[in-house]
Amino acid sequence: MPKVSGVLLDLSGVVFSGDDAIAGSLAAIDDLRSHNIPLCFVTNTTSAPLRGLLEKLQAIGVAASREDIFTPAVAACRLVKERGLTPHLLVHPNLLEDFDAPAAGTPDAVIVGDAGAAFTFEALNEAFRAIDGGAEFIALACNRTFRDGKGDLSLDAGPFVKALEFATRREALLVGKPATAFYADAVAHLGTPPAETVMIGDDVESDVEGALQAGLRGLLVRTGKYRQGDEGLIDPPPSAVVADLREGVDWILAGGR
Amino acid sequence: MPKVSGVLLDLSGVVFSGDDAIAGSLAAIDDLRSHNIPLCFVTNTTSAPLRGLLEKLQAIGVAASREDIFTPAVAACRLVKERGLTPHLLVHPNLLEDFDAPAAGTPDAVIVGDAGAAFTFEALNEAFRAIDGGAEFIALACNRTFRDGKGDLSLDAGPFVKALEFATRREALLVGKPATAFYADAVAHLGTPPAETVMIGDDVESDVEGALQAGLRGLLVRTGKYRQGDEGLIDPPPSAVVADLREGVDWILAGGR
Repeated sequence: MPKVSGVLLDLSGVVFSGDDAIAGSLAAIDDLRSHNIPLCFVTNTTSAPLRGLLEKLQAIGVAASREDIFTPAVAACRLVKERGLTPHLLVHPNLLEDFDAPAAGTPDAVIVGDAGAAFTFEALNEAFRAIDGGAEFIALACNRTFRDGKGDLSLDAGPFVKALEFATRREALLVGKPATAFYADAVAHLGTPPAETVMIGDDVESDVEGALQAGLRGLLVRTGKYRQGDEGLIDPPPSAVVADLREGVDWILAGGR
Repeated sequence: MPKVSGVLLDLSGVVFSGDDAIAGSLAAIDDLRSHNIPLCFVTNTTSAPLRGLLEKLQAIGVAASREDIFTPAVAACRLVKERGLTPHLLVHPNLLEDFDAPAAGTPDAVIVGDAGAAFTFEALNEAFRAIDGGAEFIALACNRTFRDGKGDLSLDAGPFVKALEFATRREALLVGKPATAFYADAVAHLGTPPAETVMIGDDVESDVEGALQAGLRGLLVRTGKYRQGDEGLIDPPPSAVVADLREGVDWILAGGR
C-alpha cells in the first residue's frame, strides 16, 4: 500500500455532529497537522453557507480558512460563471449568500441542493417545469440522507434530485461528491498524489465510493449517518472501516493499513 | 387480431380535461354503449375521491356508477383490510374520504398518492422515517406527470414515490396502474377476455405499457398529457396511436385495426 500523503475530511458526521465536535476529532486533526500531513474539508452539506461552516469549525476549535473547505455551492458558482448560466436556485435559504444575486432574464439552469423546508410542491413544480423546458439541471449533491441536529435521519438533496430526474427523464449534472471533478479539485489543492490521498467520511456512497472512483482511498467511519452494514453497500469495499476519525487518523499514522 | 369485447377508459386527459369533456368523448362513449361493448373507467387520479370523479362524470353527461370506476384508493383500502394494516396516509386532503378514519396505534404502512401541496418536506420526512423503520410502502400510483386544470404539466405521485424509494432503498408496492392486479380487477368486472379488452389512455407507461403487460391491448390518445414522441418511449409500442377517444372508438368499432 502507498503511504498516506494527504487527507480529505467530510465535516458533518465526521468532525462534528450538530453543533458539537465528535469526541476525539479535534485531537485527531491536530495529530495530522503535527505530522505535516496536509488536509482539507470536502463537504456535501448544502444547508449552510461556507461562512457558516467556517464559523462552526472555529467554534469547536478547528482552524480553517475558506480555501480549506470545498463545497458544492462554490463548485456550482464556478460552473455557472464558466458557462455563463442564469440559474434558478432550489436551495436552502441559508445557502443563498454563496451565490450571486439572481440575474435578470429567464433562468437557463436549475440548481438543486438540500433545500429542506423550501422543498415545497410549488417550488419543485417550478424547478420541474424549467428543467422540462430545457434548462440545465445541476445537482449540488445527491446524498440520500443526513443525520439532523436531533440525531434523526432526514431526507437529503438526493431524493429530490431523483424526483426531478424521474419527472423530466433527465439526469442531473452532479457537482458535489461523488463527482470525480470535485474530488480532483480538492486533491489538486492538497497537491498530493490521488493514490496517496485518503477521504474519510460517513456516507458510504458519496464519500467512500466516490473517493475510490476518483482514484483515492476511502475510509468509512461508524459515526454520523453510518448504519451497520453500510460498508456492504459498495463494491469494491472501503479501504478500511474505522470507529471514528480518531481511529481513522491512527490508521493513517500507522501507514494506512 | 381478436375483436374488441370490452374497453377500459382512463379519465383525465381522455374523457375530460380539467372540468370539461374532451370534444367528442361523450358521443364516443355513447357509441360504445349503443354497440353493447361493456366499459369501465380506470384512473390513477388520486387528488379527487371516487365521489368527486363520479360527480364530474355526471356533470359532463356521462352516466356511471361507483362500480364502474376503478381507483387506486379503492384498491389500497382493500389491501389494507386484507392485510390488517394501520396506514399512514401521505395523500391529497380530498382523497381522505376514500379511506377509513386513521386507527389508533403506530402505523405499519405508508400510502403515498398525488398529495399535491401536501407534499411538504416535513410530511415526506415523516413518511421516510416510517418506511425506513419498517412500515409497508404502498404507492397509489407512480405516474410522472399530469396536466393540471390550467393545462400545465405538473408533478404527479411518481416523482415523490421515487424520492422515497431512493431514500429508503426500498421499492414501493404499486396498487394503481400499471399494476397487473389493478388491470385484472377491472377486466374481471367487465367479464371480457383480456386479449379482447382495450385500455385507452394518455399516459404511455401507466395506461398503455401497463395494459400491454397485463395482456390487454393499449391505445394511446394524443390528448391530455400526450407529447409528441411518447409512443416511442415504450417497447412493444402501443396497439395504436389515435387522435382522441373519438378516433379510438372508431378504431374499435372498425374491428380494432
